[in-house]
Amino acid sequence: MFSLSDFEQFAQQSLSSDAWSYYSSGAGLQQTMKDNEAAFLRYRLRPRVLRDVSAADTRTSILGNTIDFPVCVGVTAMHKLAHDDGELATARAATKYKTCMVLGSFSTTAMEEVAEAGSPGLQWLQLYIFRDRELTRSLITQAERVGFKAIVLTVDQPVIGPDSYKSASLPPHISFPDIGLSGPINKEKVRNLIDSSVTWEEVDWVKGLTKLPVVLKGILTAEDAVEAVRHGVQGIIVSNHGGRQLDGVLASVSGISFSLCATS
Amino acid sequence: MFSLSDFEQFAQQSLSSDAWSYYSSGAGLQQTMKDNEAAFLRYRLRPRVLRDVSAADTRTSILGNTIDFPVCVGVTAMHKLAHDDGELATARAATKYKTCMVLGSFSTTAMEEVAEAGSPGLQWLQLYIFRDRELTRSLITQAERVGFKAIVLTVDQPVIGPDSYKSASLPPHISFPDIGLSGPINKEKVRNLIDSSVTWEEVDWVKGLTKLPVVLKGILTAEDAVEAVRHGVQGIIVSNHGGRQLDGVLASVSGISFSLCATS
Amino acid sequence: MFSLSDFEQFAQQSLSSDAWSYYSSGAGLQQTMKDNEAAFLRYRLRPRVLRDVSAADTRTSILGNTIDFPVCVGVTAMHKLAHDDGELATARAATKYKTCMVLGSFSTTAMEEVAEAGSPGLQWLQLYIFRDRELTRSLITQAERVGFKAIVLTVDQPVIGPDSYKSASLPPHISFPDIGLSGPINKEKVRNLIDSSVTWEEVDWVKGLTKLPVVLKGILTAEDAVEAVRHGVQGIIVSNHGGRQLDGVLASVSGISFSLCATS
Amino acid sequence: MFSLSDFEQFAQQSLSSDAWSYYSSGAGLQQTMKDNEAAFLRYRLRPRVLRDVSAADTRTSILGNTIDFPVCVGVTAMHKLAHDDGELATARAATKYKTCMVLGSFSTTAMEEVAEAGSPGLQWLQLYIFRDRELTRSLITQAERVGFKAIVLTVDQPVIGPDSYKSASLPPHISFPDIGLSGPINKEKVRNLIDSSVTWEEVDWVKGLTKLPVVLKGILTAEDAVEAVRHGVQGIIVSNHGGRQLDGVLASVSGISFSLCATS
Repeated sequence: MFSLSDFEQFAQQSLSSDAWSYYSSGAGLQQTMKDNEAAFLRYRLRPRVLRDVSAADTRTSILGNTIDFPVCVGVTAMHKLAHDDGELATARAATKYKTCMVLGSFSTTAMEEVAEAGSPGLQWLQLYIFRDRELTRSLITQAERVGFKAIVLTVDQPVIGPDSYKSASLPPHISFPDIGLSGPINKEKVRNLIDSSVTWEEVDWVKGLTKLPVVLKGILTAEDAVEAVRHGVQGIIVSNHGGRQLDGVLASVSGISFSLCATS
Repeated sequence: MFSLSDFEQFAQQSLSSDAWSYYSSGAGLQQTMKDNEAAFLRYRLRPRVLRDVSAADTRTSILGNTIDFPVCVGVTAMHKLAHDDGELATARAATKYKTCMVLGSFSTTAMEEVAEAGSPGLQWLQLYIFRDRELTRSLITQAERVGFKAIVLTVDQPVIGPDSYKSASLPPHISFPDIGLSGPINKEKVRNLIDSSVTWEEVDWVKGLTKLPVVLKGILTAEDAVEAVRHGVQGIIVSNHGGRQLDGVLASVSGISFSLCATS
Repeated sequence: MFSLSDFEQFAQQSLSSDAWSYYSSGAGLQQTMKDNEAAFLRYRLRPRVLRDVSAADTRTSILGNTIDFPVCVGVTAMHKLAHDDGELATARAATKYKTCMVLGSFSTTAMEEVAEAGSPGLQWLQLYIFRDRELTRSLITQAERVGFKAIVLTVDQPVIGPDSYKSASLPPHISFPDIGLSGPINKEKVRNLIDSSVTWEEVDWVKGLTKLPVVLKGILTAEDAVEAVRHGVQGIIVSNHGGRQLDGVLASVSGISFSLCATS
Repeated sequence: MFSLSDFEQFAQQSLSSDAWSYYSSGAGLQQTMKDNEAAFLRYRLRPRVLRDVSAADTRTSILGNTIDFPVCVGVTAMHKLAHDDGELATARAATKYKTCMVLGSFSTTAMEEVAEAGSPGLQWLQLYIFRDRELTRSLITQAERVGFKAIVLTVDQPVIGPDSYKSASLPPHISFPDIGLSGPINKEKVRNLIDSSVTWEEVDWVKGLTKLPVVLKGILTAEDAVEAVRHGVQGIIVSNHGGRQLDGVLASVSGISFSLCATS
């Protein structure tokens, strides 16, 4: 295990073909998914020399919490596709390495169990605005109750775009306990949960519901970053949803020049 | 059927090798044909977030007619190469999806039948200026009579360039009823029909013959776009003829920055 | 025979492997040889439409002589490597298509015979400055006598660079009658004929020897083009010797922006 | 043996797979290692013509010593991996072609023997700042004693980065006599020798220990080049450690625009 591509190769060999298909899928012709990686090659590091690195310290702070490792575990759905331990294993690993884990709305493990497995680590909840506003509100309430430290609102998926993961149904062992869906789950059903009429008003609504910091995930333009600041959110995550959502957009690393910008 | 490349793969498997050769052929070294596709990768979408897309409406209007789907069926010749239903099937599909179909001068089905099959949909006629001016005039008259709504004059093919479709003769079942040619048709004969002395004077001549809007297809430079406006045409189509005509030219999408610009 | 690559493929199949090796060889890692072709793809034609092309005329004039076809037969050595008819066949073809042929110093056929075979076509002589100045002078005199219309002085090969044509000796049937060498010829011997001390003084010397126009072949920089004008030559040919001479230089088409610029 | 790639191919065939793995290894995804070569293709030579090159002279001087061939033998470690003659053979070859050889701290042959084999040629010593400052100092003293002419201090490897050479131990015949390590040597042991707390103070310290010129190797930014001048070093070598150290950095040839800049 030497580079990220070694992990990718290991995953492809270890996962079921269905799980690999899900994790490696991208939207459309996968132009953006491929560009997400290729774009890094368009940048070069300019290293400075003769600095004392004997006591290098990678600690940093995000939204007021210290993490030891400056790369967080971003949102991914359905960890039980990969392994029966699912999000519990991810939470334990993130806590072990003292970084933040962002749990998805489409977690295949109940939020409460994940919070317990990751205790006393740092966890945030990723949220969609569901058509069912009560469900949406209850997820926020539950996140506060179990000690999550921020709400990450995904704003780039008002409609789930067509991607290369072609199974019509999820495997039967996949359920989404926090949003009350048990398997086998039809993908169309998932698609219908999400509200495609969401605007900045819902951002204000979420902010009104919670004292937790709110972070917007999926912003790619400076115009929207400015708008986010205007609405008083505490951070944004520059992302194109891993190239799974809208093919042809900017690579994440080529988006506006800050990736997680905490304003508080 | 997920992306355009899926359609391409299906076509290659379903068509006769001769038909595939025709539809996939390009001029010269096919630099421009390949660049037509590659050029799209040189652009990136910059998506804005948090817009209400629950009632997305793709309707638009072209030259005064409303279409539901904002991509039209462009001109292609000889649909019976692909299927015996030929242009009739295309017309029915375009009408079903409420978009515009542009019928080619080299239709393998009579214009009148196509108009009927596509009724009450929107149809335009693509026109070459033939050496035989009476034939040219009669096509316009007939287009008006059957209810076509515009004349699309192709201006980028004064001479049919050498492309990679190498058959000397078209298959025997191919005929061009509207221009009075029945099979088997020799390609050289087709080549000789087209007038290579055409200039902007013929544009004026066509405009004088009809009350229908006139659209010029095959313009790649701003200079010619300006000239088109000066001659009072109602629209232009920025195109390099699919890379089939003159190899080495600009990709269509890299041409002047508007693709169908209706001035009325 | 549809595009240049078809000719290339035909040549590879028809020539002896030794001849193919010679004609397809390039200097060093062949970066420049490959770039000579790739560089064309970095340019795009911007076609204008609606011009009367029914009487297209490709005639032009170079250094006072009219040619019908605006691409000349550039200098290549040793045509008998490809075919026993050698330069005689080339001369006949150039004359048939009414364009100019530039005969190389390393012609495998006597200049006089080539002149006769190509009569009454247009022919120029390519010249190296040999260590043997009398030989050099005699080639010019002979060119004048047989009716050649210009002297093309190669200026980019003071030393023959290492290229991928690795045979130590030329095939036994190859001889260079005009410079008095008969086969089998050792490549080292050829290398030693050329004077590597040549400067602009020799350009002046050549101009003093003949009333024929003098063209410099192998100029890649604007600085040298200016110097060429200052020395009163009648034209330059922007070229990197087909990528056979110095690897890593500009592609010919990327050189200064004129390729054959007759000043008279 | 015609181009560098021929040498590379010969090496791959001749070396043990372990030695080839070592010499061809790079850091991370080897992006920088590959870019070191690809970057040369982003530059083009602009050759001037008609210069007298009959007496071309490649001699130049570096830090006061004349060399005939203007490319030096840069630092590479462990020549005995390639051949039992190791650094002795390299020293003899460098002296034969009258260029400079830079001997590595991790030489598998004693400095004294290399000096003798290369006598009377030009040799420099590459130095790391070891945790053991006495060892560091003794290497400088010994370099002076055996007649080396400069100290090349490597500044881009405070920590040995992970690269694709995966053997945990070096082959048993590999020893580093000058730093007192005999085989079999564990790579971790080597890693621990180097001091990662080194700053510009150690540059001053080295300069204070010796009258020999000091050259810094591994500088990639103009900022550090300026700093080097400020600290009075006699030269810098712009290098990214062959892409073996920190993946993602600038190609060496794309670094600041001078590669060996002797200031004295």
